Amino acid sequence: MNPPKKLINALKENERFLILTHTAPDGDAFGSQLALKLLLEELGKKVEAFSEYPIPEQYKFLPGVNSIKDLKFLSLDSFDCLILVDCNRPKRVSYQKDIVDSLREFKGIKIVIDHHYEDNETLDFATVSWICPEVAATSVLIYYICKKLNFALNKEIATNIYTGIIVDTGNFQFDNTSEEVFSIASECVKAGANPSFIYQQSFENWSIKRFNLFKNMLSSLEVNPPVAIAFLSNDVFKKLNVIEADTERFVEFLRILKDVKIAALFREIEKGFIKVSLRSKGDIDISKIATEFGGGGHKNAAGYRISGSFEEAKMKLIEKLKNYSLL
Amino acid sequence: MNPPKKLINALKENERFLILTHTAPDGDAFGSQLALKLLLEELGKKVEAFSEYPIPEQYKFLPGVNSIKDLKFLSLDSFDCLILVDCNRPKRVSYQKDIVDSLREFKGIKIVIDHHYEDNETLDFATVSWICPEVAATSVLIYYICKKLNFALNKEIATNIYTGIIVDTGNFQFDNTSEEVFSIASECVKAGANPSFIYQQSFENWSIKRFNLFKNMLSSLEVNPPVAIAFLSNDVFKKLNVIEADTERFVEFLRILKDVKIAALFREIEKGFIKVSLRSKGDIDISKIATEFGGGGHKNAAGYRISGSFEEAKMKLIEKLKNYSLL
Repeated sequence: MNPPKKLINALKENERFLILTHTAPDGDAFGSQLALKLLLEELGKKVEAFSEYPIPEQYKFLPGVNSIKDLKFLSLDSFDCLILVDCNRPKRVSYQKDIVDSLREFKGIKIVIDHHYEDNETLDFATVSWICPEVAATSVLIYYICKKLNFALNKEIATNIYTGIIVDTGNFQFDNTSEEVFSIASECVKAGANPSFIYQQSFENWSIKRFNLFKNMLSSLEVNPPVAIAFLSNDVFKKLNVIEADTERFVEFLRILKDVKIAALFREIEKGFIKVSLRSKGDIDISKIATEFGGGGHKNAAGYRISGSFEEAKMKLIEKLKNYSLL
Repeated sequence: MNPPKKLINALKENERFLILTHTAPDGDAFGSQLALKLLLEELGKKVEAFSEYPIPEQYKFLPGVNSIKDLKFLSLDSFDCLILVDCNRPKRVSYQKDIVDSLREFKGIKIVIDHHYEDNETLDFATVSWICPEVAATSVLIYYICKKLNFALNKEIATNIYTGIIVDTGNFQFDNTSEEVFSIASECVKAGANPSFIYQQSFENWSIKRFNLFKNMLSSLEVNPPVAIAFLSNDVFKKLNVIEADTERFVEFLRILKDVKIAALFREIEKGFIKVSLRSKGDIDISKIATEFGGGGHKNAAGYRISGSFEEAKMKLIEKLKNYSLL
């Protein structure tokens, strides 16, 4: 895989870089942001990275993470190049309109490096873009940029790239786990990344309250093969004093049952407002269901938001699954 | 890594092979057995494989698995070469004394290919042995045998090797997950192994009763950082109609809590007879604890058996952890 020449030239020719990523940043967002920051710094550039605060507990081990600044203090004045990683439009960077507007109006070079599908806003926004929906993680693209610049991975960059890969492949279990992913993982380990340490930091980091939330989800599970549906009410969130981020990877677990081909987790983030995460196995394309409800995603992992009660939302989902002959 | 010349010669020069593995075979046992069987058959040899029956549900997808015969019908008459894989002595092949004795008395070439530590019995038994405790899985050794014989992996062999790797590395999360492991995984995928399919078959295969057993384990969990202890009583096993194999990988899950560095699962297999599985994070060597109780294992994964009540067994473990300043 070959980064566009225009991108490589922009990285070589500019001096002051700002790197941003999407809201609720995950391991691939932070990993890509930090790997690219560390790389550009090695090349002698001045680089700053901003993201939403606070940095989630599980990503505090990432090399360079302490240099990430709070997005609310962002000022665009001193940069000649803005890079969005794992994110392809200003709107995804922040829920704050003034930040989004200021990014749109930025006068310097605007680069997008991402593995999500581009949309019209990306085309309008980016001066240079490299968007590869076929790669498993944006950090894979950062790896190829290192290669193109003849930069040998060091432990810090390798750890960030590796983290991006495991978070976006579910630690090598999703169907984006390719020959390429393993070959890059192998190079990351060679350069010093420690798989079991990174796994523990990224995934084995639950608080007791998160563990109790998980038990709650399991008790709520309704299994009607091929579908399993779990529900976490707003009352549970409040009672256990947990937040949405505490449910990360919960829905993956629901696929563990042999006869379950489609798993859904309903999270009532606010009273009467439900986020639905869908997962499927094998050839079952669940993204079309999510799209019908105004959401989106990939074949085996998608989601949408819906108002109303759990029972209503569940009935609507079941009806839609029947319409698509998935039930 | 280079297979011994004596081993390669034995594989080339003999014609009728019998391949066996350990009791309660797991993914590396079956994967190694089948990968080697398929390889030798490609080389025109006559090969048979036997194991304990029934074949566990999660390994029924393995290419060639239907050719494995029930160990209780084993007859050694027609073979000139006996190979033990993922197992280094006759005693580990069966609980039946007559089978073990017949293996010891086998007059042909006796080969051992394994990644567990050898003991004196291995040295007495094997004509040719290749034992590499430093590799993550025995199937990695089968991979090197393929290479040495200039045999290009096909999809069937690659799927078996890949399964051995993911089962013995906990799908790339244990500290045996090396550069080598990823590089071989990459070659397996290139040859046709499908990571998400193999993951689903091997790991996302729980029955409802196994799921209920898991919920039971979670409710029993006592968390006193850095230790978490869970217990499954014989009554629970009986009530839910589950067997020991249904607890596979349960103890791994107990590491998920951030503050837990040592996890223990007590399984009362028979009334008053407990199997203890221990897991640790990072540098904590739990194998010395297991050894003290007459068991064994690796740094981060070990186990032992103990008689008595759960409370007694728990107290003995806690005392031992204190003796070793792990608590």
